[in-house]
Amino acid sequence: MTTRTEEVLQSFRERIGQIKSYEEALGVLYWDMRTGAPRKGLEARSEVVGALSVQLFKLQTAPELGEWLSALEASGSSEQLGEIDRRLIRHTRKEYDRAVKIPEKLHQEYVVLTTQAETLWEDAKENSDYASFQPYLEKIITYQNQFIDLWGPGATRYDTLLDAYEPGMTTAELDRIFGGLREKLVPLAAAIAASPYQPEQSFLKQTYAKEAQKKFSLFILEQMGFDFAAGRLDESAHPFATGLNPGDVRITTRYLEDDVMSALFGTIHEGGHALYEQNIMKELIGTTLCTGTSMGIHESQSRFWENVIGRSRPFWNRYYGDLQQMFPGQLNVSVDDFYRATNVVQPSLIRIEADELTYNLHIIIRYEMEKLIFNEGAKAADLPGLWNEKYKEYLGVTPENDGVGVLQDVHWSGGAFGYFPSYSLGNMYAAQMTAQMEKELPNMWELVEKGNLLPLKEWLTDKVYKYGMLRTPSEIITDITGNPLEPEHLVTYLERKYKDIYKL
Amino acid sequence: MTTRTEEVLQSFRERIGQIKSYEEALGVLYWDMRTGAPRKGLEARSEVVGALSVQLFKLQTAPELGEWLSALEASGSSEQLGEIDRRLIRHTRKEYDRAVKIPEKLHQEYVVLTTQAETLWEDAKENSDYASFQPYLEKIITYQNQFIDLWGPGATRYDTLLDAYEPGMTTAELDRIFGGLREKLVPLAAAIAASPYQPEQSFLKQTYAKEAQKKFSLFILEQMGFDFAAGRLDESAHPFATGLNPGDVRITTRYLEDDVMSALFGTIHEGGHALYEQNIMKELIGTTLCTGTSMGIHESQSRFWENVIGRSRPFWNRYYGDLQQMFPGQLNVSVDDFYRATNVVQPSLIRIEADELTYNLHIIIRYEMEKLIFNEGAKAADLPGLWNEKYKEYLGVTPENDGVGVLQDVHWSGGAFGYFPSYSLGNMYAAQMTAQMEKELPNMWELVEKGNLLPLKEWLTDKVYKYGMLRTPSEIITDITGNPLEPEHLVTYLERKYKDIYKL
Repeated sequence: MTTRTEEVLQSFRERIGQIKSYEEALGVLYWDMRTGAPRKGLEARSEVVGALSVQLFKLQTAPELGEWLSALEASGSSEQLGEIDRRLIRHTRKEYDRAVKIPEKLHQEYVVLTTQAETLWEDAKENSDYASFQPYLEKIITYQNQFIDLWGPGATRYDTLLDAYEPGMTTAELDRIFGGLREKLVPLAAAIAASPYQPEQSFLKQTYAKEAQKKFSLFILEQMGFDFAAGRLDESAHPFATGLNPGDVRITTRYLEDDVMSALFGTIHEGGHALYEQNIMKELIGTTLCTGTSMGIHESQSRFWENVIGRSRPFWNRYYGDLQQMFPGQLNVSVDDFYRATNVVQPSLIRIEADELTYNLHIIIRYEMEKLIFNEGAKAADLPGLWNEKYKEYLGVTPENDGVGVLQDVHWSGGAFGYFPSYSLGNMYAAQMTAQMEKELPNMWELVEKGNLLPLKEWLTDKVYKYGMLRTPSEIITDITGNPLEPEHLVTYLERKYKDIYKL
Repeated sequence: MTTRTEEVLQSFRERIGQIKSYEEALGVLYWDMRTGAPRKGLEARSEVVGALSVQLFKLQTAPELGEWLSALEASGSSEQLGEIDRRLIRHTRKEYDRAVKIPEKLHQEYVVLTTQAETLWEDAKENSDYASFQPYLEKIITYQNQFIDLWGPGATRYDTLLDAYEPGMTTAELDRIFGGLREKLVPLAAAIAASPYQPEQSFLKQTYAKEAQKKFSLFILEQMGFDFAAGRLDESAHPFATGLNPGDVRITTRYLEDDVMSALFGTIHEGGHALYEQNIMKELIGTTLCTGTSMGIHESQSRFWENVIGRSRPFWNRYYGDLQQMFPGQLNVSVDDFYRATNVVQPSLIRIEADELTYNLHIIIRYEMEKLIFNEGAKAADLPGLWNEKYKEYLGVTPENDGVGVLQDVHWSGGAFGYFPSYSLGNMYAAQMTAQMEKELPNMWELVEKGNLLPLKEWLTDKVYKYGMLRTPSEIITDITGNPLEPEHLVTYLERKYKDIYKL
């Protein structure tokens, strides 16, 4: 490597370190705002977030960064670079090209628009008033279409948006995957609904003391191998996980006193995200590769821990006794009845409250609508009607109003088109990884039944977590299973589980 | 005002806003590190703090800022500027000149040195090992002397350091003030020690449940008018207050289960700092004038609330019953005995554990030693001997080792020479303000006895808090009392209080 290349590499690495520092600082500020920052300070705090965001954008889009990237790409020294530098250059090039293609003025207008729209959406949802939100949504769609033109459309226009959340994912691939899924899940959901056996779950809705819920949540996190010297659990209105660095990964939950499972499953879900972020290899710390490789793979980990493990029979064979002790006299049903009660399938209107099976149908609806918007030119005005038709068709339910219909999710108000598929991709990745884990850890379910969850965490660390962004999503799933993502594993998993529970 | 001046003013104000934003972001990061950030993330976090600090220093010392200041100073438009802009220009000029006079390389070396020294000091204190710390302290003194040369010495070399913490304060003035104080306090302390009446205080040292302590601390904060929508109380090893902006002022305390008063007085102390920061006028938000005007005035507020009010007889006449109820069966003495017990005077080795009276002697010792270092050339090697001599002379005690002697404070390891006098200045400002408050609120002590503390807060808001840095310390005290700072008020206050308690 020439001295000049070494100097450029040094400058490039320093810049990456600065970018990562600003991202981490902003991460702390966001965490703070959501977990307990005093209300009256938030207006001034938004100035602080603004100042750091502007500087971050400058660091990410500065002409010298483009020059360094070109020099490193052209130096012919690619073979001499280590894997981390090579991936870092490739990743930064992609982000850089995306960012610099948007004129600064357009970017700023868009930030103002989505900030307003998110606030407006809250009121619109509250009042089921789609009309007030519609013009904003229409504008956001117009901006997104401009971005697609600037970035350059993929095989379809919607592909360009998908790529931001799940690198390499395409509409063609999702059509195949979601097509297979829909075909199997719709009849399965119908069979479940028709089953004469329906689990009793009213006992889950007593008053369960918050302190005991918290204690049990912390206990389960510890059982999963969450490192409390490298993370913490707090409370917030909307649970989330944030990986500031692998030594500081924070999750939140929300305790509902009338629901014993809500906070716990929320904690396990965010705990899955946290295990991923806590176990990224040291070598990536301080680089922008030090995070999960995609939204889909990230979601596979939250859902693996929440659903595959946390809603499994072996898990409750081990932990139900502990839960009973935590709430003396309140949980008098058998472990089997408890297990069934936590796995009720019920078509419903609200995605975030949906069960493991119908959840995917909620996602497929959003995916199909986003395709209609960007590939078929559907307008904001068309969306409530399309929404209600699809809910009727796939789930057999119809929203009473748009607040529990097309307005239920925050995503579109922030312009996050292309994000929703990640949730179902997560379920599919998780099922496919589980099938492989069952082969490689043949006593996997015995381990769970004994409360020995650490070997599962170690297996995932070795196959997924440690790599951070050093592997792409498709490399991850292919390296683990020898195959690309296939929806059959999720179908098999759900069929096996629910045929047993519903005695089909 | 010319268009050009208006443009410059606009650029100047924007820069001030950026500087303030970085200060607030760093404030959140420091608060987070001290109140619960996971241990394993701190190493990466220090990189984040470093990146923001470097950028802050750049914003503060950029040549264009100097040009804007010169243009605004020379524009002849000073009369057309509002008071806030005029003060902001004067304040920024002072900070700017101080900062740019230190070459960047020297500054960086110094930051590295003091960072190492602070870590080293912790071990040295723990092991009473002054020898290991001495070379670092000697180097820090050498750097400070270089800074004095670069900044330009005042009437004495030490004056230059004082000015950073208490603008306008001089050695001549402190000699006068501390001289008067020492002359009166040494004999008063001796008379107290010789009194046949000594309060009984062993009952304060039972086991007092932490949760009840916390509840009572929050209750008293609320009584003081602390706004919980604009602040919060947390725990940390070393209590502190941080005003991020007037809508977000955070304080911490530390609960000791074997000491019922420690956390409470700590909370009231930090609460006093917080009332100052919460009540700065809105117009200063987002500017660097939006904080206390000096360390001394800030400390006057923590000490007014902690000592003048919190250790007063009327205060406990009102609140002792509540405290007794908080700890059923544990506080069986009379309110008078309780009041005396919380006001025991006892010469001791450790500053931060000292009573209201002897505390000032601890400060005078440090002040005299700092003068010896910078005005008389005393060396690091001389300090333990000097320290022990002065403790013998002023307090009649001798440290068993340097851990409880010259190594007890963190300040010098961070290069904070000139800071200590602020603590006693705070006591004196507080006493002088109290004397005036008694005149202007003639029923002041009745209000306290009734638990009606808000008029006191309002008075201080009107005279001190709202101005932030818009008034200098000497303007503040002169505007309130018609006189400059005079130590007599503190002497009178202490004599009146302790002659009663110790029946002298």
